[in-house]
Amino acid sequence: MKASIVTIGDEILIGQIVDTNSSFIAKALDKIGIETVEMVSISDDKEHILATLKKYQNKTDVVIVTGGLGPTKDDVTKKTFCEYFHDDLVVDEQVLVHVTELIEGIYKRPITQINKDQALVPSRAKVLFNKVGTAPGMLMEEGGTVFVSLPGVPYEMKYLIEKELVPFLVKKFKRPYIVHKTVLTYGRGESLIAEQIEEWENSLPEFIKLAYLPSPGRVRLRLTARGLDEALLNEAVAREVEKLNVLIGDIIVGYDEEAIEVVVGRLLSDKKMTLATAESCTGGAIAHLITAVSGASNYFKGSVVSYATQAKIDVLGVSEESITKHSVVSTEVAEQMARAVQAKFKADYAIATTGNAGPSKGDADAEVGTVFIAIATPDHIIVEEFNFGQPREKVIDRAVNKALEKLYKEILKN
Amino acid sequence: MKASIVTIGDEILIGQIVDTNSSFIAKALDKIGIETVEMVSISDDKEHILATLKKYQNKTDVVIVTGGLGPTKDDVTKKTFCEYFHDDLVVDEQVLVHVTELIEGIYKRPITQINKDQALVPSRAKVLFNKVGTAPGMLMEEGGTVFVSLPGVPYEMKYLIEKELVPFLVKKFKRPYIVHKTVLTYGRGESLIAEQIEEWENSLPEFIKLAYLPSPGRVRLRLTARGLDEALLNEAVAREVEKLNVLIGDIIVGYDEEAIEVVVGRLLSDKKMTLATAESCTGGAIAHLITAVSGASNYFKGSVVSYATQAKIDVLGVSEESITKHSVVSTEVAEQMARAVQAKFKADYAIATTGNAGPSKGDADAEVGTVFIAIATPDHIIVEEFNFGQPREKVIDRAVNKALEKLYKEILKN
Repeated sequence: MKASIVTIGDEILIGQIVDTNSSFIAKALDKIGIETVEMVSISDDKEHILATLKKYQNKTDVVIVTGGLGPTKDDVTKKTFCEYFHDDLVVDEQVLVHVTELIEGIYKRPITQINKDQALVPSRAKVLFNKVGTAPGMLMEEGGTVFVSLPGVPYEMKYLIEKELVPFLVKKFKRPYIVHKTVLTYGRGESLIAEQIEEWENSLPEFIKLAYLPSPGRVRLRLTARGLDEALLNEAVAREVEKLNVLIGDIIVGYDEEAIEVVVGRLLSDKKMTLATAESCTGGAIAHLITAVSGASNYFKGSVVSYATQAKIDVLGVSEESITKHSVVSTEVAEQMARAVQAKFKADYAIATTGNAGPSKGDADAEVGTVFIAIATPDHIIVEEFNFGQPREKVIDRAVNKALEKLYKEILKN
Repeated sequence: MKASIVTIGDEILIGQIVDTNSSFIAKALDKIGIETVEMVSISDDKEHILATLKKYQNKTDVVIVTGGLGPTKDDVTKKTFCEYFHDDLVVDEQVLVHVTELIEGIYKRPITQINKDQALVPSRAKVLFNKVGTAPGMLMEEGGTVFVSLPGVPYEMKYLIEKELVPFLVKKFKRPYIVHKTVLTYGRGESLIAEQIEEWENSLPEFIKLAYLPSPGRVRLRLTARGLDEALLNEAVAREVEKLNVLIGDIIVGYDEEAIEVVVGRLLSDKKMTLATAESCTGGAIAHLITAVSGASNYFKGSVVSYATQAKIDVLGVSEESITKHSVVSTEVAEQMARAVQAKFKADYAIATTGNAGPSKGDADAEVGTVFIAIATPDHIIVEEFNFGQPREKVIDRAVNKALEKLYKEILKN
């Protein structure tokens, strides 16, 4: 069972926006055993769209197109679908009622002809009803391939994938099983890990594939098994993960899609412990990551982003003398920041970061890339100095990951 | 001058990671007048890579491939390039010295054979020297098309694009001009804007294209002009933007790639004014966005993320009585939060957010999606209530954008 994903929009081809839809769709398809073999981004151009639909027809069982369904003139997908399938646009009454209710009833705006035109769909299309927006999804079949058109607005696309398309595909197609297991490791480089697990990797069964997914400060190892017997696949993958644990158990912090902030959140929740952060160079990135997880209010108390040096003194009560003596990027300041938020927020654990993310040197003389990370636990505190190199985004990213990794390890010890 | 961008990696096709490289590359090419006509993500499979290279040869002048160059076994790009170009791998001595220095000298790790193999390149390739990582970039020409292979790690790819590839392409090719101007609007829907500017849009000259880029809370309008005379293109676009200003000047907040946090940052910098934030439902997202802009230390003092209700009392000094009487999601609490950080951080302006991002109701009875936003200025304070609907990510996103939009308008008034 193969799928292709097509994203339409000049804004993607000139690099103005990043296509995040394809990734979401691929993950949803993967979960139901449908393999995405290609993703492509193309222009808002009729001929380009027609050629792309033709390319994937009969090559993949499903072609999912996003974008180009909005109300404005630069959106051409709907008309192009009509041309491709030799069909005409007709008003879908149910969609028209919904669009009118949404615009007039909820948004309290006068409805325009442009709004009303959103209810036009190809006459032979199965309409995927879009409760959360005005542009409906559409599904058409031709020569053994299912073609789907979805709006490009991410939450509308997500709604239609989850509530309409996935149930449709599950019912229509018999699919093989795909089992993934991702092993999250922190603190060791890709090639060192590769050396350590080389023998194991070479002896993996044919139907299990290994992939390395490195990013600043962490490496994920993904095992993918494909086959007809789901139980057998699960067993085989579990067996290999066990072997991996014997080899590199010391750097494994979690499994599957779980990001470290999810792993840490669950640990804190289970232990009924709480967390606060004091962030300088990371500028709120740790708090933002933690609070993006729903349910974070169970363990996250809050953060002080003491970006300016004076704010460290005024808001956190870091001693001016320590700053003068040791500089604002120092063990002493990191320690005082962590202690201060731990007390202020009455939290069990605290993270503090102070450093220089660059590109220029700040209030301290510290080299660009230098970051001090402090972890305060209920009974002790640790501080470590790092140099995360450059550029700025990498420094922030690595500091956030390293801080969460260190916190994770401290929580495990308690 | 046309380009295609190819991303290699199974992790993209199963939706495990989002491809951000293609967007970066497209933007860099666009700046030098090279039009990206297609972006495609394909698997780590030799046959798939060969077919893709063949597809774009002679169709585009440049084919840029990222990914599949790492040290581990799942990386196949280099060998596939050799097969495609009928070439063999040889050791590049300069790269070998660099890899050795980086691993042994900087990272202080023992060098492995896997590391050393990173210095292997096709014998006829022009090596793009990668100062910031171990995998070199490679450039080969065949049948009028330039093929480029770059590592998939974003900051290594970026380094090679900026320092090696763009200078090479600028020197090698004569390119037409592409002029973009993006007009940033806040606070009005796409279809209402479309109605207001319909007549203007219909009278745009042939060589200027308009695109609508809507996202929660804002719509960007992008004008793109293509032609041989750069000065003429710039003049024509400026003229159209002027006309647009007459029609919808009231909702225009800035131009081009500038995000609102950049616009606000520059305004504050120019006025030598400062900002602090008090965030509840946005959880540090505003501080994170602001501090992601380099130079933010000139105007951003810091933030208190008072996520837990008790933290609003303990850290910000919000009155317990107000919370009991009006609920934690209320005008009164938002106002007190803004006043508190404005004073604590000695900032000229302050933003506060308190609301319920969902999915479940929190400490307050407020409907999911309800957010109060307060903006404190040097001489007054405003608070407004919004309902941003759901899901969680949309609520946070819209709250962040709305808060920055409101701040922007207040700063302009002063």
